[in-house]
Amino acid sequence: MSGDILETFPNPAPERDYVIEHVGQEFTSVCPKTGQPDFATITLRYIPDHLCVELKSLKLYYFSFRNEGIYFEAVINQILDDFVASCEPRYAQVEGDFNVRGGIASSVTAEYRKE
Amino acid sequence: MSGDILETFPNPAPERDYVIEHVGQEFTSVCPKTGQPDFATITLRYIPDHLCVELKSLKLYYFSFRNEGIYFEAVINQILDDFVASCEPRYAQVEGDFNVRGGIASSVTAEYRKE
Amino acid sequence: MSGDILETFPNPAPERDYVIEHVGQEFTSVCPKTGQPDFATITLRYIPDHLCVELKSLKLYYFSFRNEGIYFEAVINQILDDFVASCEPRYAQVEGDFNVRGGIASSVTAEYRKE
Amino acid sequence: MSGDILETFPNPAPERDYVIEHVGQEFTSVCPKTGQPDFATITLRYIPDHLCVELKSLKLYYFSFRNEGIYFEAVINQILDDFVASCEPRYAQVEGDFNVRGGIASSVTAEYRKE
Amino acid sequence: MSGDILETFPNPAPERDYVIEHVGQEFTSVCPKTGQPDFATITLRYIPDHLCVELKSLKLYYFSFRNEGIYFEAVINQILDDFVASCEPRYAQVEGDFNVRGGIASSVTAEYRKE
Amino acid sequence: MSGDILETFPNPAPERDYVIEHVGQEFTSVCPKTGQPDFATITLRYIPDHLCVELKSLKLYYFSFRNEGIYFEAVINQILDDFVASCEPRYAQVEGDFNVRGGIASSVTAEYRKE
Amino acid sequence: MSGDILETFPNPAPERDYVIEHVGQEFTSVCPKTGQPDFATITLRYIPDHLCVELKSLKLYYFSFRNEGIYFEAVINQILDDFVASCEPRYAQVEGDFNVRGGIASSVTAEYRKE
Amino acid sequence: MSGDILETFPNPAPERDYVIEHVGQEFTSVCPKTGQPDFATITLRYIPDHLCVELKSLKLYYFSFRNEGIYFEAVINQILDDFVASCEPRYAQVEGDFNVRGGIASSVTAEYRKE
Amino acid sequence: MSGDILETFPNPAPERDYVIEHVGQEFTSVCPKTGQPDFATITLRYIPDHLCVELKSLKLYYFSFRNEGIYFEAVINQILDDFVASCEPRYAQVEGDFNVRGGIASSVTAEYRKE
Amino acid sequence: MSGDILETFPNPAPERDYVIEHVGQEFTSVCPKTGQPDFATITLRYIPDHLCVELKSLKLYYFSFRNEGIYFEAVINQILDDFVASCEPRYAQVEGDFNVRGGIASSVTAEYRKE
Repeated sequence: MSGDILETFPNPAPERDYVIEHVGQEFTSVCPKTGQPDFATITLRYIPDHLCVELKSLKLYYFSFRNEGIYFEAVINQILDDFVASCEPRYAQVEGDFNVRGGIASSVTAEYRKE
Repeated sequence: MSGDILETFPNPAPERDYVIEHVGQEFTSVCPKTGQPDFATITLRYIPDHLCVELKSLKLYYFSFRNEGIYFEAVINQILDDFVASCEPRYAQVEGDFNVRGGIASSVTAEYRKE
Repeated sequence: MSGDILETFPNPAPERDYVIEHVGQEFTSVCPKTGQPDFATITLRYIPDHLCVELKSLKLYYFSFRNEGIYFEAVINQILDDFVASCEPRYAQVEGDFNVRGGIASSVTAEYRKE
Repeated sequence: MSGDILETFPNPAPERDYVIEHVGQEFTSVCPKTGQPDFATITLRYIPDHLCVELKSLKLYYFSFRNEGIYFEAVINQILDDFVASCEPRYAQVEGDFNVRGGIASSVTAEYRKE
Repeated sequence: MSGDILETFPNPAPERDYVIEHVGQEFTSVCPKTGQPDFATITLRYIPDHLCVELKSLKLYYFSFRNEGIYFEAVINQILDDFVASCEPRYAQVEGDFNVRGGIASSVTAEYRKE
Repeated sequence: MSGDILETFPNPAPERDYVIEHVGQEFTSVCPKTGQPDFATITLRYIPDHLCVELKSLKLYYFSFRNEGIYFEAVINQILDDFVASCEPRYAQVEGDFNVRGGIASSVTAEYRKE
Repeated sequence: MSGDILETFPNPAPERDYVIEHVGQEFTSVCPKTGQPDFATITLRYIPDHLCVELKSLKLYYFSFRNEGIYFEAVINQILDDFVASCEPRYAQVEGDFNVRGGIASSVTAEYRKE
Repeated sequence: MSGDILETFPNPAPERDYVIEHVGQEFTSVCPKTGQPDFATITLRYIPDHLCVELKSLKLYYFSFRNEGIYFEAVINQILDDFVASCEPRYAQVEGDFNVRGGIASSVTAEYRKE
Repeated sequence: MSGDILETFPNPAPERDYVIEHVGQEFTSVCPKTGQPDFATITLRYIPDHLCVELKSLKLYYFSFRNEGIYFEAVINQILDDFVASCEPRYAQVEGDFNVRGGIASSVTAEYRKE
Repeated sequence: MSGDILETFPNPAPERDYVIEHVGQEFTSVCPKTGQPDFATITLRYIPDHLCVELKSLKLYYFSFRNEGIYFEAVINQILDDFVASCEPRYAQVEGDFNVRGGIASSVTAEYRKE
């Protein structure tokens, strides 16, 4: 569950603002209160600056949450912080769509803009 | 049917504006005119300030409407008022999508912005 | 086919701008040219001022068009005029989505804003 | 609401058993108990013998129910009886899918086989 | 939660085997173990003998489960038993599709055939 | 509108019964009564014997109906007859799903089995 | 393929800006390069000034393209020009969604605003 | 990953053959070859004899596979064997629908019938 | 494009007839007539005897068709022959659903049963 | 994989800003890292200036990527550069929606505006 897992490669078109989106449909972590698993789809959208995130390392980074106890709200803010630290994007947005618990489906969305 | 049921926990990222959404698909109350049950999906979206709503208490809060006689328009405004009083969010929106009655499906949407 | 059928009740939250939507999926009238029935879904969205429309009276109001000969464009403008006269809303929009005739599906949308 | 409205034309391929299906999406009648309109999709499937039903007359036949008070179960059995009397098919099935009333959607399906 | 609520009317076409289906999308009861509400869609399919079930009484019968503590499997078997006792059908099938609990959606289906 | 347009090629696996399906989504002909265009999706399913139909010739064959006046029921029986004459299949089925006319969608399905 | 086919009637509510949309799902023309038929859904949206387009004439106007050889881009611009000349709308938009050719689906959208 | 986790309760209607289905949408295990997580929806359908499976224990049983290395084919056969040993059903079927790997989605379905 | 690419592993439950399905959504080959690429979803369903096909080798096997010129009908029969030779299943079915060409979508389905 | 493949024809309505969209559903290239094929839908939207892209040449241009090793991000930026060089549009946007890899679906979107 460390952002160090994220690997990057040079942006092939840094002269242009463009959007990359990765929809990870197989995110799972553990509820810190009940110990039961949570499941989510994590959508990462960003405008790269000089770096792009490498796709396989993103998969492994998500995988590192598998047995961690962490709340929905903290998951999204941590992914955003780790991604921004690794890729230094011009813009980034992370959205998590969590499966129904007790008849309620939840989503959390946070974003970052380079100043 | 009291907002006191709602419990909160500290926002893990208060330095950032971000959006939390809870879609409660199992809301039911009773029509005050006919005594027949009404059914709705209630969507709560908010930008937390220093507090987040605890998910299980939200489920119990919705559950407290089960045998109350109350109109669609009043349901949504009361949920918004109770939520704002409990969580003191920067922004909140409550949308209720009510099942078909007499061939007509209804929805009601209200919002709040902290000044 | 008179707006007098529409009944109202006091808006429970007049201090707030909020949106009410009623989707009537069973509207039918008669084509004035061919005498054949037309079918539509009528969506009424409004921001109430001091009055809300009562749902059952809305159903009966739509029912009153059942054997009237009237064009699509006139249906929507008349519903908007009757609703505005009855409920005096801050804002209202009426959208009619009419079934396919001769391979063409039609919709008509009109709106009103209180000055 | 009389089967006399139904017109026929000669089956172009009486040497072969084949299936014709007409899905009428705009059926409406009136509830004999409440006087309120009912709406349904009527599906007629048949294997013609020497006659096929003419499509426009089928539309007019359905139209003749528009202001009649009649229960779901009776609608379907009457359509089947009228169709069998007019077209004398080798096989016929009539299915009515009625819109939600009181949170309940209903369908009724009856069939006929020439002996 | 008594089958006595169910009312019947004479089958308009007892000379023919045909199928009636009622899909009740707003069933709710209470879990006897946790006290939390359960939600389901109940589908009743039957071939009437001399009686048909009256639709409004079926809605009220389902409504009578609203605050009863009862397991999924017992709900379906009881509805089937009550319906068979009231309507004495030639055939009946009851299917309940229950909302997700703990990431698992459940359905239960039972049927009856008159000997 | 002649089956001579259909071309064939040798079945690459005549030792085995297997199914080929071609779904032509762009069929159009003309109503012989009104002169207005009709539109349909034509599905041809067959078990080849020693010949398969060539796809481009099938497209051209369907295209040959474009300005012909012909009823739904005749379209399907003629396609089946032309196809059977050209390809001599072990089995063939032709289904036409015609667009809504007067609120009614129609389909016609015929089949052939080599004796 | 002449705009003279289009007929109009007086706008019943010229005092108000409102939107009319006609979705014609059965447009077909011929590719001028290959001679093969093209198929499209044509969506016409407009704000009427003093005239509305009559629906049946719109169907016949589309029908007039049936055997004309014309490119996608020219179809949409011609429909827009013909419609503007006939109806003199305050605003008009024409969108054509053309079926897949060579694995590529195309759409063309043009609009007009009265100055 | 032991069937001992499964708990049962007495079948409330053992005199009747009826079907119970549980669709577990949150199954995850680990690929024994790559160490990467696999995800599946597991559908369990059965006809109970004297015992029904308790829903929460089923959830915990599925949860016990979370960090086990096991192939798709073995997952389904083991769940079937464990379930049959615990509940002794008259009939049982287990279907696993596994997420796409390398562009290929897989499912495995096994069943048991008491002799 | 040789069946030698297919690898197998021992069936973990040879005492039981059960069904395995692999849906490969990314099959592509080349049309032998036009040289243009074809695209299909290939569904392989089988009942294993003593061997199961290894998933990654199946992906590579499909990949080997990428630049081969081969007709739809031949693709499916060859995949079935290669699979049967490699895995010696009790039953196998191969279905190919090919993308639209000239407005026509095609599928081919063949099956094998061990005697 | 050279933009020289792209052919153009004169814009039939250069006096007007309008939007053309081509959705190519059959794009495939090869991952430069693993040698495995990638699959995508490429959506090209543009406002033509004096030239439009010819549809068949666009198909061939996409086809030229079939056996090239290239990353997602580079694919989209190269298509945009090649298209802008060939067609000199007033505006262009290229969006690639790539199939799931390792449980993650990706899209990349870049745009160009003539100054």
